[in-house]
Amino acid sequence: MDGYAVKFSDVKDCSSENPLSLKIIEEIPAGYQPHQEIQSGQTARIFTGACLPKGADTIVIQEVTKREGDTVIILEAPKPQEFVRYQGSFYQAGTPLLTPGIKLSAPEIAILAAAQCTEITVYRRPKVGILSTGNELVTPDQPLKPGQLVDSNQYALAVAVEEMGGEAIRFGIVPDEREILKQTIAQAVTNTDFLLSTGGVSVGDYDYVEDIIKQLGAEIQIHSVAVRPGKPLTVAKFADAECVYFGLPGNPVSALVSFWRFVQPALKKLSGIGEAKWGPEFVMARSLQDLRSNGKRETYLWGQLNLGNDGYEFQLAVGSHSSGNLINLAGITGLAIVPLNETLISAGQSVRVLKII
Amino acid sequence: MDGYAVKFSDVKDCSSENPLSLKIIEEIPAGYQPHQEIQSGQTARIFTGACLPKGADTIVIQEVTKREGDTVIILEAPKPQEFVRYQGSFYQAGTPLLTPGIKLSAPEIAILAAAQCTEITVYRRPKVGILSTGNELVTPDQPLKPGQLVDSNQYALAVAVEEMGGEAIRFGIVPDEREILKQTIAQAVTNTDFLLSTGGVSVGDYDYVEDIIKQLGAEIQIHSVAVRPGKPLTVAKFADAECVYFGLPGNPVSALVSFWRFVQPALKKLSGIGEAKWGPEFVMARSLQDLRSNGKRETYLWGQLNLGNDGYEFQLAVGSHSSGNLINLAGITGLAIVPLNETLISAGQSVRVLKII
Repeated sequence: MDGYAVKFSDVKDCSSENPLSLKIIEEIPAGYQPHQEIQSGQTARIFTGACLPKGADTIVIQEVTKREGDTVIILEAPKPQEFVRYQGSFYQAGTPLLTPGIKLSAPEIAILAAAQCTEITVYRRPKVGILSTGNELVTPDQPLKPGQLVDSNQYALAVAVEEMGGEAIRFGIVPDEREILKQTIAQAVTNTDFLLSTGGVSVGDYDYVEDIIKQLGAEIQIHSVAVRPGKPLTVAKFADAECVYFGLPGNPVSALVSFWRFVQPALKKLSGIGEAKWGPEFVMARSLQDLRSNGKRETYLWGQLNLGNDGYEFQLAVGSHSSGNLINLAGITGLAIVPLNETLISAGQSVRVLKII
Repeated sequence: MDGYAVKFSDVKDCSSENPLSLKIIEEIPAGYQPHQEIQSGQTARIFTGACLPKGADTIVIQEVTKREGDTVIILEAPKPQEFVRYQGSFYQAGTPLLTPGIKLSAPEIAILAAAQCTEITVYRRPKVGILSTGNELVTPDQPLKPGQLVDSNQYALAVAVEEMGGEAIRFGIVPDEREILKQTIAQAVTNTDFLLSTGGVSVGDYDYVEDIIKQLGAEIQIHSVAVRPGKPLTVAKFADAECVYFGLPGNPVSALVSFWRFVQPALKKLSGIGEAKWGPEFVMARSLQDLRSNGKRETYLWGQLNLGNDGYEFQLAVGSHSSGNLINLAGITGLAIVPLNETLISAGQSVRVLKII
């Protein structure tokens, strides 16, 4: 605080009836190192954030003083050690400043800067390769002929990866030709931590991409998952290249749902996010609509997760929940989950929802 | 689906007892434009994602057929129009594809790519100038002499701004010299949408920065706010430069709390976030500890906002809630608010919490 640095023993009985005059021997603004030691009967003019001079132990705020040239009259007794902050009040050397497994956001950067930790060891951003396969695909800026599809996955997945702190590396559209696909994948896995491919199911031959990655030395860990949308999911490990391969469905809705449910947690883990935080974030919500499934697969229905007065509410997106309908995916914040073997969660009932950031 | 494109009228009575042989006149992979029209008695081999040929209205999946050279035997009747997706099923020309006021995240980018919208009009990223004032400040990589402080605000605020989608422009540490400060501010306001300065309270003269910005043509709208931490807050509008000035406290905790409470919503609004979404996000939570205030100002206490079984819970950060204690700000996710004139929210009671992203 702005005021006067004093010895408490000097001023402990001060009042307006019993004022005390002290000699000002120094002025100490913030950032200035005091040069003199306060003796009994002396004081130093001091300002917020400044260093306490030797000999002083208490600040008297300027509001209860009266300045007269080189002296100041103290009109009120402070509390002992008032407005003094001691070294080590908030942090002691040897205790950890930050715990591992966290994202460095504004407060953590403030702490590191304040502690002059200008270099620390962090997990690097995961490199995530993204490629789309299929002869029917064109880029968004190419003319679209009948029967062709625009490749949207590459752009959507790149945004999803970057939003999670990953570095997206786009390998473009790869035609359904075995040698080109093999070369592209071989190149991609040596330069990335994850490789995401969408589509990649050759015409009428579902093992096309799996064949190629096996030839390239991958060990296939998952072939498909009982979820809807997103049944086809290949997960494979390239042991030599230290790359994990995710073969996602080509359908844009299925590709995004698969990303959120399966790839995003892996990406968080690889980014160094700690044990308790990298997994998918599920919450319980009250469904505002009937949620239906054919019961044959765990079914993900998209919509808005909102916080009402009595906790979370899930509002099903208006329109078709066909995996072909990309349009009503805009602005969604959650995926409600109808469990395997269940066909209906009625409006008003509780449902598990995967939060989407 | 992979199968055969047929006229429903041809196959409506098919069964294994009543099979029908159709002549295959074309093979249609995805991305291929059909050249022939299906006549009665004919079919085309077709694959998932491919274009339906003229004359056909239904797909028979390959699992219920038997191929014999150029003909295929249909062993089961499909439903009419089965596995056909019509143009305009999910979206009709003329209806808005996306609503304004949203962030373009992965699903929205997928929609734009699929619709071949390769150029759209967006709000640009706000440019946010950041400067720190004070002769006591040094950068994190400078030697720290007694009485000096490390400027952490500049780095923390830059991260906070970038995380909100803004472009942070750091103007460094400006010494407490009227002319230098005036020139720096004059330069900064012409190049930024917002200017955030921290500290800027000259030694013993609290109107120092306000004087300067008034000279530069600013209209001061807010001098201080009854919150704790963060009472000193200057908000001013530079009419000519279209820049809004935020004078934040120099104390790093106060600077961040002021940013989250007052600057962040303004930044979201300027980024084009819609009416319902740019404001501060408050939720009600059950406090797990007693929350105390001196009642004189609205008090913000930091901690973890977690979702329990019965809704949100607020866990007060361990350690001092002095505005001098930056250390326990690490990893916080919410600021609990003790209202003006209240001194205690007891453990178990409900408290309003500002969510921190």
